[in-house]
Amino acid sequence: MHCSNHSGPYEASLLATIVIATATITQPGAWKTKLSWEELVAQKKASLEETLPSDWRLSKNLLQRYRPSSLDSRYTPAQGELLHDIPFISDNEIDITENNTATQLIGKLAKGEFTAVEVTTGFCKRAAIAGQLLDCLTETFYSRALERAKVLDDHFKRTGRPIGPLHGLPISIKDSFDVEGITTTCGFVALLEVEKPKKNAPLVDLLLDLGAVLYVKTNVPQTMMTADSENHIFGRALNPLNTALTAGGSSGGESSLIAFKGAPLGVGTDIAGSVRVPALCCGLYGFRPTADRIPLFGQESVRTEYVYRGIPKILACAGPLAHTLEDLELFMTTVIGQQPWNYDSLSFAVPWQTRFEQKNSTDVKLRIGVLPEHPGAPLHPPVRRASQEAISLLEKASHEVIHLPQDPATDITLGNRIAYQYYFYGPKKADILGASGEPMVKSVAGGINPLSTGDLTVDPQADLTAQIEGLWSARAKYTDAWRKVWVENQLDVVLCPGAHCTAVAHDTWGWPFYTAPWNLTDFPSLVIPFGKVSKELDPEGFPAKSHSQPGYDPELTDGAPCGVQVVTPKFQDETCLWAGKIIDRVLHV
Amino acid sequence: MHCSNHSGPYEASLLATIVIATATITQPGAWKTKLSWEELVAQKKASLEETLPSDWRLSKNLLQRYRPSSLDSRYTPAQGELLHDIPFISDNEIDITENNTATQLIGKLAKGEFTAVEVTTGFCKRAAIAGQLLDCLTETFYSRALERAKVLDDHFKRTGRPIGPLHGLPISIKDSFDVEGITTTCGFVALLEVEKPKKNAPLVDLLLDLGAVLYVKTNVPQTMMTADSENHIFGRALNPLNTALTAGGSSGGESSLIAFKGAPLGVGTDIAGSVRVPALCCGLYGFRPTADRIPLFGQESVRTEYVYRGIPKILACAGPLAHTLEDLELFMTTVIGQQPWNYDSLSFAVPWQTRFEQKNSTDVKLRIGVLPEHPGAPLHPPVRRASQEAISLLEKASHEVIHLPQDPATDITLGNRIAYQYYFYGPKKADILGASGEPMVKSVAGGINPLSTGDLTVDPQADLTAQIEGLWSARAKYTDAWRKVWVENQLDVVLCPGAHCTAVAHDTWGWPFYTAPWNLTDFPSLVIPFGKVSKELDPEGFPAKSHSQPGYDPELTDGAPCGVQVVTPKFQDETCLWAGKIIDRVLHV
Repeated sequence: MHCSNHSGPYEASLLATIVIATATITQPGAWKTKLSWEELVAQKKASLEETLPSDWRLSKNLLQRYRPSSLDSRYTPAQGELLHDIPFISDNEIDITENNTATQLIGKLAKGEFTAVEVTTGFCKRAAIAGQLLDCLTETFYSRALERAKVLDDHFKRTGRPIGPLHGLPISIKDSFDVEGITTTCGFVALLEVEKPKKNAPLVDLLLDLGAVLYVKTNVPQTMMTADSENHIFGRALNPLNTALTAGGSSGGESSLIAFKGAPLGVGTDIAGSVRVPALCCGLYGFRPTADRIPLFGQESVRTEYVYRGIPKILACAGPLAHTLEDLELFMTTVIGQQPWNYDSLSFAVPWQTRFEQKNSTDVKLRIGVLPEHPGAPLHPPVRRASQEAISLLEKASHEVIHLPQDPATDITLGNRIAYQYYFYGPKKADILGASGEPMVKSVAGGINPLSTGDLTVDPQADLTAQIEGLWSARAKYTDAWRKVWVENQLDVVLCPGAHCTAVAHDTWGWPFYTAPWNLTDFPSLVIPFGKVSKELDPEGFPAKSHSQPGYDPELTDGAPCGVQVVTPKFQDETCLWAGKIIDRVLHV
Repeated sequence: MHCSNHSGPYEASLLATIVIATATITQPGAWKTKLSWEELVAQKKASLEETLPSDWRLSKNLLQRYRPSSLDSRYTPAQGELLHDIPFISDNEIDITENNTATQLIGKLAKGEFTAVEVTTGFCKRAAIAGQLLDCLTETFYSRALERAKVLDDHFKRTGRPIGPLHGLPISIKDSFDVEGITTTCGFVALLEVEKPKKNAPLVDLLLDLGAVLYVKTNVPQTMMTADSENHIFGRALNPLNTALTAGGSSGGESSLIAFKGAPLGVGTDIAGSVRVPALCCGLYGFRPTADRIPLFGQESVRTEYVYRGIPKILACAGPLAHTLEDLELFMTTVIGQQPWNYDSLSFAVPWQTRFEQKNSTDVKLRIGVLPEHPGAPLHPPVRRASQEAISLLEKASHEVIHLPQDPATDITLGNRIAYQYYFYGPKKADILGASGEPMVKSVAGGINPLSTGDLTVDPQADLTAQIEGLWSARAKYTDAWRKVWVENQLDVVLCPGAHCTAVAHDTWGWPFYTAPWNLTDFPSLVIPFGKVSKELDPEGFPAKSHSQPGYDPELTDGAPCGVQVVTPKFQDETCLWAGKIIDRVLHV
């Protein structure tokens, strides 16, 4: 069954669908709030004020100077000169946070060159600054973090050894992860009234067991389903490379914080591009592993299971964002080394494969399939230029580049069409927005629809059984077509852009054409920053073609990072990072 | 929602549910046959006659002497003396088939001590004998096998090397796997009219690429959902250890053929115990791996996808049966070594872990959790005796045995209740039995229901969404409770019986209490034969308590094999076989 009438009532009804698709667990009315949404937000803002240590507050003067005055004010707080104007952060703390990757930090912590308290203090202060300037945080728990850092230092002093492989490393986590005693709202006003979690999400427990220090949760879009991380409680996470551009979403608080160096490493989640898009927008590395290799949620914490797992869906997954590929690998190897399946029975008991590390990677010649640019999702000129330059560098380094043909079976638009329906079909039982009466933020109200061409995969009016069956079959067929591409071309990886655009003006991003298909197939995918928008090299702008595809504005986006995406089949996370490292070295000689 | 009224109309309607649950893919009426079921069967039997080489036919005299005259005639064809009465099988062929495991065969084939043609001829002949005496086969393709064996021998002569790690090894496969040009019916008369498969199932292609020789497909129950492998087309697979007892099911053709040594190694499928139960009944080793580590079906061959994969279900999986644990390991390591994910995108790209092989297993002390005997599924006395003896031997060998307590969260009856509903809920679109008008065989008509106590997990009258949600949550909770058992007790494995009974009289097996819960949780589980029924040691019989639990008949079952089951969490297949080997050595010193 197909339905081609997708520009009529179906699209109109999508708005309502989006905002309730995130809350399918409880019965209607379960979230109904006692106060108005404005009262709840005002109450929360007051309590957030209290959690910020008074000596880490920016003066009105500093806020006026460094906090962007409007959404179109172009400003680059990431450059960091502003830190020297801020009285409560020391030169040493600026140096620790500015000049160390996560891998470098754990090395120095393990040798006793840094104490956990000084590293934690540095990142807490820098995060507090980021939170006040960029609205990238939701909840903060600095004093808990500093107490823990002290325990770690005591352990180190007593034993001479780190407590675990991430001893003393501050890690930021997306708001969706439960931390005991800290509210989890995912940007929904109604969830402010829900009881605080009584236990940590499995990943939180696991990171603590590894020795990490948790100190902040980071901002997300209302509904967690857009690329603009804005909601009525915590505001909008801004892009520290250019505050007039989106920081991406839904892990936009992460990308904003990390790009500002308020965290060396952070954990996002990705169901359509929510790790990779913000990484790309903020010039970071971001990795979407195979779903369920990293624990996503707990068993009991149903209210944060925004992906309803009973009905077959595209699974969200947790993944890292950082300044280097090495730091992503640090996250993957240490988390999986800690046997996440002992924390969460939904996590696969599949150890990290180390076989690749024995190969001498300088001798390896990769076979790289290049995804063709799709006429339905044309690349912005600087993205096209960066892709071509990357391919050219890889060819010069003697890697084999295979230009894949356009093929209806693996068409990226087909992948997006199937994904689109997967995100929004299924039972809808509760409306969390309706429960508090909060209005939709602009990016949610705008709606998104990738269907510039082609039919829907299944009739959205058909019964749920037919929809489940039709979508499952379409996905299996699409995934198997990609398997054949890999086998027949003997590929190591597929290379494609991380998106057809770069970070764009707020609330204009649209549909994530180049990331969502890899969620549909559950293929590991890695964003590597490469190249930048240049108004000199690509001076010709063009307007948006639809609300799903933003226009190209050379003036506004000048200097914004571009990136490439490295993709491997499901479970080949190790190959993705291994080949990614080889590609990264070629691109960043 | 719960429904405790399971002994009334729900149970009555279960009969209809069972027989149509196997065919949910096509629309009603799609299977409607042109001929009556009796005509179709008569036609098929005539054509099967033709495929049997005339010089491999047993004379009327031999059939009269060696084919059991009735279902309660107790007779042991597996002892093999009968072979010397059969003119067309040579002493050398008897020796090859009688005295070599799969591992020994590939060793001798790789050294040129045996040719593929002589090995294949031996197993083809012995299978042809088994087929005529025990009804363990469905389709045979001996001439195709012998042609292939010749190609392999030519390759070996030319190159001096085997073509692959299973060079020349005959392997039997369950009827459900598609082989190009060979009918796949799974015991349904209506499927005799369906077009023959145009391509091999992925596992078939993979086994051929490994160098194996395929020559027969093996018998299954009508519906593939009982432990008695009987259908109207191919008859009933008999147990060569005692023809008055079931060979088990649904891979009962496999266990019958392998126990008769008509195959050194075979492939079954298991959704509730269908590899492990027949292995147990026939004194073999059988392994149920994590689902989707071994490719089950192809993408296009929907008519054999008897497990409807769109709606969340308990996944069937393919697994090996053999005379030794080493042969099961041979199957797992060679199949996974061949990267099944390159054949089938539903197969996990998870290599076989070899880390365990480095450990010196004689020094290893396992931590073994022993499942408590459940009052709702009491063990037959010889099964209890075998279990206790196994535990005692393991303790003597200094392994740590932890007697797990009865716990409502991990109760085996709870696992069976959830599994029971999973097998039979969901959309029912076609009735393959109704399409030809064939009647149910006795084991299907008998119905099965494990609910001696307790409520159903979800209301079977609720809408599908509520059922999916309820069953998913119950399964996740049950699986996570087992995770905690493993973590808190630091277990390597759980040990339990393979069933509460041994092979019993035909059509009386009932519900597989001790295997189905591990399908629900998708935990790898291995059956190791150990001990035997002894009417001297356990002289007290008792009658059946319900049609789900057969009685104990010491006279009838005397000498029937018992067995233990070794279980590990999902994806820990390597640990299951590794620990299984250590346990096996203790049990069979």
